[in-house]
Amino acid sequence: MLSGETFLMEPVAHIQSDFQEKFGIPRQSGLVETLQARIVLTPPCRNREMLRGIEDFDYLWLIWRFSANRHEGWRPTVRPPRLGGNVRMGVFATRSPYRPNPVGLSCVRLLGVDWDAADGPVLLVAGADLLDGTPIYDIKPYLPYVDSHPEAKGGFGAEKKDYRVEVCFPEELLIQLPEEKREAVLGVLAQDPRPAYQEDPERVYGMVFAGYELHFRVEGSLLTVVAVEKKEK
Amino acid sequence: MLSGETFLMEPVAHIQSDFQEKFGIPRQSGLVETLQARIVLTPPCRNREMLRGIEDFDYLWLIWRFSANRHEGWRPTVRPPRLGGNVRMGVFATRSPYRPNPVGLSCVRLLGVDWDAADGPVLLVAGADLLDGTPIYDIKPYLPYVDSHPEAKGGFGAEKKDYRVEVCFPEELLIQLPEEKREAVLGVLAQDPRPAYQEDPERVYGMVFAGYELHFRVEGSLLTVVAVEKKEK
Repeated sequence: MLSGETFLMEPVAHIQSDFQEKFGIPRQSGLVETLQARIVLTPPCRNREMLRGIEDFDYLWLIWRFSANRHEGWRPTVRPPRLGGNVRMGVFATRSPYRPNPVGLSCVRLLGVDWDAADGPVLLVAGADLLDGTPIYDIKPYLPYVDSHPEAKGGFGAEKKDYRVEVCFPEELLIQLPEEKREAVLGVLAQDPRPAYQEDPERVYGMVFAGYELHFRVEGSLLTVVAVEKKEK
Repeated sequence: MLSGETFLMEPVAHIQSDFQEKFGIPRQSGLVETLQARIVLTPPCRNREMLRGIEDFDYLWLIWRFSANRHEGWRPTVRPPRLGGNVRMGVFATRSPYRPNPVGLSCVRLLGVDWDAADGPVLLVAGADLLDGTPIYDIKPYLPYVDSHPEAKGGFGAEKKDYRVEVCFPEELLIQLPEEKREAVLGVLAQDPRPAYQEDPERVYGMVFAGYELHFRVEGSLLTVVAVEKKEK
């Protein structure tokens, strides 16, 4: 028998993303390619040597902690939003954040390394589904010859396409956002950030992204942005 | 800033595999499909409910701890055996076990669930690269629409085919192994378990598998088994 089985993990990095709140974060990594984020190493790991050769890889795995819900518990089953909220699945058959060890696993695309950043070297990545400031405990290269199984059965999670919406973002509202954030916002909204089992065309939802609060409504498969507000810091 | 960033993980399961020693374990998961293992849940998670629906998935992710080397430290760079042992790569650009948080990530194929096992429910998996008894901290379903990137650049790790060897396992030795273990042993040997930068045709290597000690030599790309011994318990 092995001993010392509980163990303490310490962050190797933190993410800087445009998500200051959980609402709106894509349900998995990689769904919104236009989303960019920075991975800033913690001082013991802030060392160019630790990243040597990493640019040979297109994708990275991040092992991180669901930090937004760390005071909540877990149950043996969860009701995945994508199943309408009524079907119970075992927690190990889902990617739910409410699990015995609240560890997240995300595959992100490596855009590059900013070797000379003041807080660097910094990894620039696309597609991250992590809240701003989330602690990361490991970074590993994606190895397609062992990690890629395009033919795999994906269970209920496979039905991603059904959940996209058309986005109507009026020009006069869109220009209130910094130009470099617009593509990402459109991508996030197209994923339909609502809880999946809500269907109330009158309801106005609020989502915070990159320091802006966006208000929108959804009717059928059309999401319409109705207001944009800059958040006070 | 988030607080409480170090955190304690507790095992949710342990693996029962045929590897009682590190030597011989395939360098990544999935390389030897004929390898079977059992995942036995720890008592707080030993609950059928926690696995409800898991059979809808072909593959699972395991997040586990490199337990064989837990008293060794890590360095910013490692020398991957597949590069001949002379080239240094940053630890985050490798899957090396010697990393800041010694966490392993493996994709295994789900063969089925033994719902009625005495120590059950038990997950039966193929392709695991884990030492017998390794603690597992999370089990997640593999979602091909986010986890699969067959087109990804895989860096140096992509050259897997170059490292396979032909296996000559004389019949009179092979029959000393239990029939149900033979395919797996042949698969493990074909991966060439030697340290990659050793080339000594005279040297006899010993590998323990499923309670047997196998002795073999490698000359060029031919591996020849020279002896099989049952290990004392």
